[in-house]
Amino acid sequence: MKFNEPIAVTEIAAFIGAELEGDDTLMATGINEIHKVEPGDISFVDFAKYYDACLKSAATIIIINKKVTCPPGKVLLVLDDPFSAYVKLVKRFRPFEPATNPISASAVIGEGTIIQPNVFVGNHVTIGTNCIIHPNVTIYDNSIIGNNVIIHAGTVIGADAFYFKKRADREVMYDKMESCGRVIIEDDVEIGAGCTIDKGVSGDTIIGRGTKFDNMIHIGHGTVIGRNCLFAGQVGVGGKAHIEDNVILWGQVGVSKDLTIGKGAVVLAQSGVPASLEGGKVYFGSPVEDAKVKMKEINWIKRIPEIWQKLYGN
Amino acid sequence: MKFNEPIAVTEIAAFIGAELEGDDTLMATGINEIHKVEPGDISFVDFAKYYDACLKSAATIIIINKKVTCPPGKVLLVLDDPFSAYVKLVKRFRPFEPATNPISASAVIGEGTIIQPNVFVGNHVTIGTNCIIHPNVTIYDNSIIGNNVIIHAGTVIGADAFYFKKRADREVMYDKMESCGRVIIEDDVEIGAGCTIDKGVSGDTIIGRGTKFDNMIHIGHGTVIGRNCLFAGQVGVGGKAHIEDNVILWGQVGVSKDLTIGKGAVVLAQSGVPASLEGGKVYFGSPVEDAKVKMKEINWIKRIPEIWQKLYGN
Amino acid sequence: MKFNEPIAVTEIAAFIGAELEGDDTLMATGINEIHKVEPGDISFVDFAKYYDACLKSAATIIIINKKVTCPPGKVLLVLDDPFSAYVKLVKRFRPFEPATNPISASAVIGEGTIIQPNVFVGNHVTIGTNCIIHPNVTIYDNSIIGNNVIIHAGTVIGADAFYFKKRADREVMYDKMESCGRVIIEDDVEIGAGCTIDKGVSGDTIIGRGTKFDNMIHIGHGTVIGRNCLFAGQVGVGGKAHIEDNVILWGQVGVSKDLTIGKGAVVLAQSGVPASLEGGKVYFGSPVEDAKVKMKEINWIKRIPEIWQKLYGN
Repeated sequence: MKFNEPIAVTEIAAFIGAELEGDDTLMATGINEIHKVEPGDISFVDFAKYYDACLKSAATIIIINKKVTCPPGKVLLVLDDPFSAYVKLVKRFRPFEPATNPISASAVIGEGTIIQPNVFVGNHVTIGTNCIIHPNVTIYDNSIIGNNVIIHAGTVIGADAFYFKKRADREVMYDKMESCGRVIIEDDVEIGAGCTIDKGVSGDTIIGRGTKFDNMIHIGHGTVIGRNCLFAGQVGVGGKAHIEDNVILWGQVGVSKDLTIGKGAVVLAQSGVPASLEGGKVYFGSPVEDAKVKMKEINWIKRIPEIWQKLYGN
Repeated sequence: MKFNEPIAVTEIAAFIGAELEGDDTLMATGINEIHKVEPGDISFVDFAKYYDACLKSAATIIIINKKVTCPPGKVLLVLDDPFSAYVKLVKRFRPFEPATNPISASAVIGEGTIIQPNVFVGNHVTIGTNCIIHPNVTIYDNSIIGNNVIIHAGTVIGADAFYFKKRADREVMYDKMESCGRVIIEDDVEIGAGCTIDKGVSGDTIIGRGTKFDNMIHIGHGTVIGRNCLFAGQVGVGGKAHIEDNVILWGQVGVSKDLTIGKGAVVLAQSGVPASLEGGKVYFGSPVEDAKVKMKEINWIKRIPEIWQKLYGN
Repeated sequence: MKFNEPIAVTEIAAFIGAELEGDDTLMATGINEIHKVEPGDISFVDFAKYYDACLKSAATIIIINKKVTCPPGKVLLVLDDPFSAYVKLVKRFRPFEPATNPISASAVIGEGTIIQPNVFVGNHVTIGTNCIIHPNVTIYDNSIIGNNVIIHAGTVIGADAFYFKKRADREVMYDKMESCGRVIIEDDVEIGAGCTIDKGVSGDTIIGRGTKFDNMIHIGHGTVIGRNCLFAGQVGVGGKAHIEDNVILWGQVGVSKDLTIGKGAVVLAQSGVPASLEGGKVYFGSPVEDAKVKMKEINWIKRIPEIWQKLYGN
């Protein structure tokens, strides 16, 4: 997420109550999770084992819970609870804006686009030309929809990431990460009825051009889906996955987070994908395997009684 | 789908730019997929291996991409891209009509039926008597709902079929089939919350009398479900399936397309049904098997270590 | 469910047309399923094998289809069809009240709570302070939402239980149980988009404090979920389950009805839970097993060809 205009790190430090180490003349231009950071960004780290990765990342401003040596050209904002400070910043610079209308006056809707009744279009949403948004769809703030997009009834675009920090010592144990990312749906996409596509935590969830979704598909935060993919009904994909072009997921497939499915892979119905898959192959099973290998295994199981018989008689 | 009134084939040919072979005095009375055609219907075929089936079908008017011998009493409409011509006809004779109201003035709603707030009822919808349509339900155009039907909140009736033609040579690779079928929900059906029941491509999706659905059930295009079925939560059924009377599908069962599940079959939770099942039996597994056979297999797997031990020692 | 004020059993008997056996001076204070009854409650029994359990339960007033000896301090209401009599009572004392407004005038909404557009809030709903109810959410009558609760778009709170009585001799074979329970969502809960949480049949469905749900989660009637649980996307839980505190269910897990998952259990993605699970362990598979045992079994299957080879040669 980028700020509307650069903000002095001294202002950031004062706002979150941090001690400032390093170059106090720097300006922050955005805020991002560690895997998404660009120069000018604020990021945060609160586990010692990730200090090094964060300090060496592109992040310019690092909220950290230990005073360490500041790398040149950066600035550290030191305080006890970087997670809460980060959330405080998100709330300050991308605050939740309650709607005053079902279709926000700040939304930009292209020519030829049809918005059916009972649709919600949030603040700062952009919808391209010649789209059809069917009834009872919800499009959260800041979503971007391309041209020739069809979204069927009841679908929800841009709900918050399912992302919490565990606080084992508190009565309410999970502390919500505020999401400031967006959903971007490219041109010529069709989304079925009753789907949910979450926004990214700080980056964007992207549905690539020409991809088609059946009904009741769930896409987690920050997941990036390529072009011309086909997902059948009730598929679920976790957060920050990367599904490359031309991937086909059949019905009820589940895909875990933080993995890649290579170009042109086909995953058969009800399979579960726990880790990255090479492109160009067909997969089946939970956990998933090469489909032919899996089918052979299913047949081998049927031979166990014969093996038993051979070894033990009856 | 039937036209409101018969249309001369010469008019059809001119509209889609086809060369006309055969009896040019014929009138078209409707438009249908090949597995649904009746005399008077227009259908289309674009693969040589299906030419014969289409020419011998009940279709009277056949849109085809090769000049072949026209069977007697029929007419061929010859052009390069029958799929696009068919879609053009659907758009012409069943055009999408944007709503002007949440509840269309053309909808017919029976006595004693309660429509809760935030419901969308599309054009030419019929709803019978003594129904309850709970909030935020969407009923697309042309759906037919019987008497004493309950539809819980957030459910979507009549979204488009998930049906695309692959065009490997185009940047946007999947070409949408326009659906002109309907959803028909018979009397005494109850549909849970958050379900999605798609319309047929040209025929009807039918939910038989007295059938009861739990929440989040997905039914694909043109699927026909019998009477007094019970489907538990999160069941998904593909397109053009036929589920006979008294079938019970437990939670999260997935059923593939173009198959039949026989009368009285019971499919246990999370099973996957890739092909037709005989009625009157209990099934389990993904892919599904006779439940007792599957349970035995699960137990046989547990004996592999003992077999290994016997063969290899430790 | 408790009545607003006690009702004389003679009035109840007259209303449902029952013969009264036992103490006819008693007053009914509520109506409950057998596993939920408290003194003063009406319950019903229609199978001989459950007579004893019902007569010995805490229920004070028992609707029964056979004249048996009435236990002291109780009263029997004898008629042919106790199920229908029970349903008639529910309809009489907790009638469905059609909405006159998207947000009922009888709803109580706490300070600082934001209700986004297109939300339905039913009669007698209570929502606490500082909640956000996102667009197109449906909250059925009598639901109770605590403080600091977030409910994402399209979610449905309080739809009817999926609970039917089979009447094999009738054309419409399943007879609906009218639900009179509620949904109670405690403080600091977050519910994702497109979830469905059904009301209890007579008791309450409860989501415990600090629990967080991802999108498209289905919770059956009367299920009680503890504190600080995490459920990932597309999880489904049947009716009257008890999920204790700190349970984690990963994506697409299915949980059957009438069981307990113990404190701190973790169930890996796509697992199916057919029966109770001990707390503090990690589970996987459908049907579920100890995750390590299941993973070993998956590996043992891969050794069957080697076993076959050893026994039979090629």
